[in-house]
Amino acid sequence: MTGASWDEWLAEQAAAREAASLRRVLRPRPPDDDAVDLAGNDYLGLARHPDVVAGAVDAARTWGGGAGASRLVTGTLALHDDLERELAAYTGQPTALVMSTGYHANLAVVTALADRDTLVVSDAHVHASLIDAVRLARASVTVVPHGEVAAVRQALAGAAGRRALVVVESVYSVLGDAAPLRELADACAAAGALLVVDEAHGLGVHGPGLVAREGLAGRDDVVVTATLSKALGSQGGAVLGSSAVREHLVNRARPFVFDTGLAPAAAGAALAALRLLRDSPDLPGRVRQRVDDLAASLGVEPPAGAVLSVPMPSPDAALAAQAAALGQGVRVGCFRPPSVPDGVSRLRVTVNAGLPDDAWARALDVLVSVVKEHAGGVA
Amino acid sequence: MTGASWDEWLAEQAAAREAASLRRVLRPRPPDDDAVDLAGNDYLGLARHPDVVAGAVDAARTWGGGAGASRLVTGTLALHDDLERELAAYTGQPTALVMSTGYHANLAVVTALADRDTLVVSDAHVHASLIDAVRLARASVTVVPHGEVAAVRQALAGAAGRRALVVVESVYSVLGDAAPLRELADACAAAGALLVVDEAHGLGVHGPGLVAREGLAGRDDVVVTATLSKALGSQGGAVLGSSAVREHLVNRARPFVFDTGLAPAAAGAALAALRLLRDSPDLPGRVRQRVDDLAASLGVEPPAGAVLSVPMPSPDAALAAQAAALGQGVRVGCFRPPSVPDGVSRLRVTVNAGLPDDAWARALDVLVSVVKEHAGGVA
Repeated sequence: MTGASWDEWLAEQAAAREAASLRRVLRPRPPDDDAVDLAGNDYLGLARHPDVVAGAVDAARTWGGGAGASRLVTGTLALHDDLERELAAYTGQPTALVMSTGYHANLAVVTALADRDTLVVSDAHVHASLIDAVRLARASVTVVPHGEVAAVRQALAGAAGRRALVVVESVYSVLGDAAPLRELADACAAAGALLVVDEAHGLGVHGPGLVAREGLAGRDDVVVTATLSKALGSQGGAVLGSSAVREHLVNRARPFVFDTGLAPAAAGAALAALRLLRDSPDLPGRVRQRVDDLAASLGVEPPAGAVLSVPMPSPDAALAAQAAALGQGVRVGCFRPPSVPDGVSRLRVTVNAGLPDDAWARALDVLVSVVKEHAGGVA
Repeated sequence: MTGASWDEWLAEQAAAREAASLRRVLRPRPPDDDAVDLAGNDYLGLARHPDVVAGAVDAARTWGGGAGASRLVTGTLALHDDLERELAAYTGQPTALVMSTGYHANLAVVTALADRDTLVVSDAHVHASLIDAVRLARASVTVVPHGEVAAVRQALAGAAGRRALVVVESVYSVLGDAAPLRELADACAAAGALLVVDEAHGLGVHGPGLVAREGLAGRDDVVVTATLSKALGSQGGAVLGSSAVREHLVNRARPFVFDTGLAPAAAGAALAALRLLRDSPDLPGRVRQRVDDLAASLGVEPPAGAVLSVPMPSPDAALAAQAAALGQGVRVGCFRPPSVPDGVSRLRVTVNAGLPDDAWARALDVLVSVVKEHAGGVA
């Protein structure tokens, strides 16, 4: 072999990360971690809710540690069926299909529906799983500027008789802003295109999600993906849409067909969380109130979801602010290039509706002082 | 839009499946299903072992329903760390990295290591997740005839200074045969290539796996992927290999970086199963004995793994045999085109070491009579 060896290549890659201050390491947290977590995605605070834990425990006792097979073999449990029926009912969709991750849900939808003959129009800020899904489908793709419906319309006008798919998120993860779903649905309807909306950050935070809120649930030309690992405090993903789409995925989506069914405990936890959400219509409002409080405290615009971004003057300032917050018992996220779509480093703060009021108030105080110090004053 | 609408396209696709007798449907099983399951992948019978259930239950109680975030944010639990350390120790590898599915483990390894400048040499029978991984990496790929090391050598000779990756399974899922791992490792070493071995069907059935058994564990130029959802009775996947590979994946593997951490209950169940396996060195031998009994009863060659394929004269005969077995309380799998690499329909029977001896003996009787009737006599 004349090129670099694998050892050399791995070492070069590691050295380049180190030189660019981009080396990331895993930091296991202990079970008795007492920092306030404003970095995770447990927006409704349900992951440790007694009912959700009981849902996981009961499912493991009833069904065992795993589903035991892929869904089409013997890995479909009555529990999956219950979860799918209740997810569909809650979100106002005809059907749901549960997968083992939200990543898989996105891979499944796009790869089963799109191929080389399909045009995919993708918002510039969609999640890595949707970008990978489009790549894997080998579809031709037009990436449009973030949130610009006119650009979507223009791209669809160039579909030239091909089937077309528009992929967006209802609430974007980095900036926390919402997609103009109704206008996008209108643009898709006018062009005969299918709209795929990832509700990873919308489900739960907005009750049944923004697709439902905008009156778009149940339309044949709108397909929703969702995750069970954020507001629902578990693991897994789901595709929500027409029975024709579901049947197509069951038969053709390789990331569904060739994957073991979602573990019983994860399905049980998600189902319990879904029932809590359904039976606690004030829960999304509680998240909303905290998002508004947080935004007001930091002097930024309230985001559409439960993720709030605070622009920082530099990657180093963002890291220093993150460390300072942790020193005072508050974990927040930090986004630096190249993980941000626009090159701006940010603190990323997520809201958790399950925190006691006093812990939440203390965390707010910490964030305000940290941002004041490291961003040269509240933005 | 001038082409077919999405509704029309979905209907056409469904009609084509129906016409080809290829429509598949999900059949939820009840918790009190009393059929003997010889279709799933719970080879060691651990999915419902009390210790494994307790592992899931304790983890859910300690950690909640989900990991709450991606692994690099706050989703790495001390539990993941324990599982990774014990998996690495058991398989004789320097490190392990746990993912949410085995599918993801394969996507992660290949996409993080291979790119357009990499040659991937892939056995013709590798799992869908490896095929998708190579596609997603956009690597150039040479598919070699199943099991032919000479073809691998020849393909590697054409790598022309590029980094090269050879992807195989230790035990193949459809035919149940084993890869010639030592010869493959020699071929890779001679060419400076990296060997990626999927031990989905090898781990547990062969104790620490065939890579370990062949003395290849811990080599810098061998990377193993595994699943926690088969012999370990849970959900999830893992990549086992050098610390340089692990660090590279932590930083660069999008299916790892952008996915929520494995749910606590799944990690806890897998860890409990791993400890059972480690502390019960006779367990793999028990699987092996049943595989031999089953092969002898059906008059076929014993496979390398716990999956036994029985060729059937036609897709209809395979379906009829499957239905007849289920009528007598035994679930087996059925592979028909296009899911088989060589177009031959098969019954697919898996061994479960956890079945009581009398249930196993009855299931054997059922299979022998069903195969005799539908394949025109035991093969």
